[in-house]
Amino acid sequence: MSEGEAFDFQLDRIISVIKDTGAKVIGLQFPEGFKRRSPGIASRIEKETGSVIFISGNPCFGACDLDVALLDKVEIMFHFGHAHLDDNKLSQKVYFIETRSDVDVKDVVKLAVNELTGQKIGLITTVQHVHKLEDAASILKEHGKECIICAGDSKIAYPGQVLGCNFSAARKEECDEYLYIGSGQFHPLGVSLATKKRVLIADPFVNELRDADNSRILRQRSAAIAKSLDAEVFGIVVSTKPGQERMALAEELKSMAKEHGKDAYIFTMDLVTPDQLLQFKVDAFVNTACPRLAIDEVGRFHSPMLTPMEFEIVLGEKQWEDLVFDEITGE
Amino acid sequence: MSEGEAFDFQLDRIISVIKDTGAKVIGLQFPEGFKRRSPGIASRIEKETGSVIFISGNPCFGACDLDVALLDKVEIMFHFGHAHLDDNKLSQKVYFIETRSDVDVKDVVKLAVNELTGQKIGLITTVQHVHKLEDAASILKEHGKECIICAGDSKIAYPGQVLGCNFSAARKEECDEYLYIGSGQFHPLGVSLATKKRVLIADPFVNELRDADNSRILRQRSAAIAKSLDAEVFGIVVSTKPGQERMALAEELKSMAKEHGKDAYIFTMDLVTPDQLLQFKVDAFVNTACPRLAIDEVGRFHSPMLTPMEFEIVLGEKQWEDLVFDEITGE
Repeated sequence: MSEGEAFDFQLDRIISVIKDTGAKVIGLQFPEGFKRRSPGIASRIEKETGSVIFISGNPCFGACDLDVALLDKVEIMFHFGHAHLDDNKLSQKVYFIETRSDVDVKDVVKLAVNELTGQKIGLITTVQHVHKLEDAASILKEHGKECIICAGDSKIAYPGQVLGCNFSAARKEECDEYLYIGSGQFHPLGVSLATKKRVLIADPFVNELRDADNSRILRQRSAAIAKSLDAEVFGIVVSTKPGQERMALAEELKSMAKEHGKDAYIFTMDLVTPDQLLQFKVDAFVNTACPRLAIDEVGRFHSPMLTPMEFEIVLGEKQWEDLVFDEITGE
Repeated sequence: MSEGEAFDFQLDRIISVIKDTGAKVIGLQFPEGFKRRSPGIASRIEKETGSVIFISGNPCFGACDLDVALLDKVEIMFHFGHAHLDDNKLSQKVYFIETRSDVDVKDVVKLAVNELTGQKIGLITTVQHVHKLEDAASILKEHGKECIICAGDSKIAYPGQVLGCNFSAARKEECDEYLYIGSGQFHPLGVSLATKKRVLIADPFVNELRDADNSRILRQRSAAIAKSLDAEVFGIVVSTKPGQERMALAEELKSMAKEHGKDAYIFTMDLVTPDQLLQFKVDAFVNTACPRLAIDEVGRFHSPMLTPMEFEIVLGEKQWEDLVFDEITGE
């Protein structure tokens, strides 16, 4: 998300939903990049509907990260920046405002045509640009390429959409290489690890192309694994956020540790931060919460932070060659 | 809490509670200073009972701060370091392990006798030393002083006990001055502001006396008020932690702001941190969450952080002379 670009906050839709439902107490939840817009949006909604507005101040990194405490206090909640995740009980009161970007993708896709070496191209993006994938596909087809835009699993709202923790839309069907439309690094890197294919990043905000290069992340992950090979005491981290909680997995990992003669403790928490783990003296952590954590905050924890699969590599249950990003998959 | 001192974690009691209740899934929650003890304690409980143990990794600053997400996942929870707070539904599954200190208080109280100038002395402390107040009282009486150890309101478990957000045990009955037994600064400062009386601090860990000097805090609070006098946009912060939530107060403050022609937005969150408020561009914040926040983290927020009473001073509804610490009181 770059400054100055227009995102669609769907204020007219929000106001009409509030009027139609007659809701008087409204929650608003924004990811970090949109939080600064919250007072302006709250103010407009308040003026036009007379409703009471509460704004979530908690960190928010995905649709998995619904503010359940705020949900408890409001009649309906608008969650910005992410697509609807799952059909669970919690989200019945939640309207997902995807805040799609109006940035044009055609120019950068035209640039990409000459850089693509394969014939069959998988198109992927985040929810902010998912409505522009057909534009991209037409351009590729005009230039003689074959395009696939695959539906993901049940966690994925739109064909071609990837999350930081779910690359199922890229794995569903074979293709020669991927074209990722968006500005971030994390999603295309995940796709390149999940598929072992080349991923070309087309950034429509700056009209630039680059290859997803996973060599640095692979070195970091290898280092985390290597540092954990002698670990005797593991801390298994579980987030209690409903969309991120993998307690059953944590308990499996704990049993696995025991079978290998290692100690393991399960630490539950809401937001997982390096500061908050500082007091727990273990040789290595295993993260079952948001998969981005082990990757994005690498080096900021006082002990190595492994993904569940890396933990299995440490124990010798899996091979280094198996290494991919951790995912939270659906059906 | 100083290192090396012995605190009573009541492991035998914990093990017998687990055996008596037959609970198989157990939660443990510790304040920051005791978190490093958690693996050792979990390990012993696991060995002796065979139960599954989950350790809360969330920050914990009081009995107000029960880990409700963990509570949802366990049959019973042991909460260390704080006394039972209220008789609410949540705490029915919680056993409060007060982790009392075995440090002797007699020597430092003997030292204090000569420094006390009044005749009628109010004795106050935290739960870690509350069982030693009678020792302190006998020494004062031997030296011809009159002692009072008052019951607080419904938030206070023991006579003479104060919390960082509740000084009711000090306010209940008149006395000439206070003797506070403990190592911290915050509680005696709160008592001195709440009562406008001298508070002598007797630190039993290092056998030292000092006066609670509230001049620095008063200067800081005055500065926060002064910086907020021109504020037009206020962010009112509400914690969703059940023991800290004061939404009704927040809504009152918001109406009050409106009556004075000011804008105010309500931000709800679990843990309140300077980082987490960074994205919200307001001229001043008003903290209705844990009262320590505005005081302990002074200067770390990007806009002044006021207590509710200070906000009323800013609006001209109260006088500067009225300034005391914010409290969360009971009945």
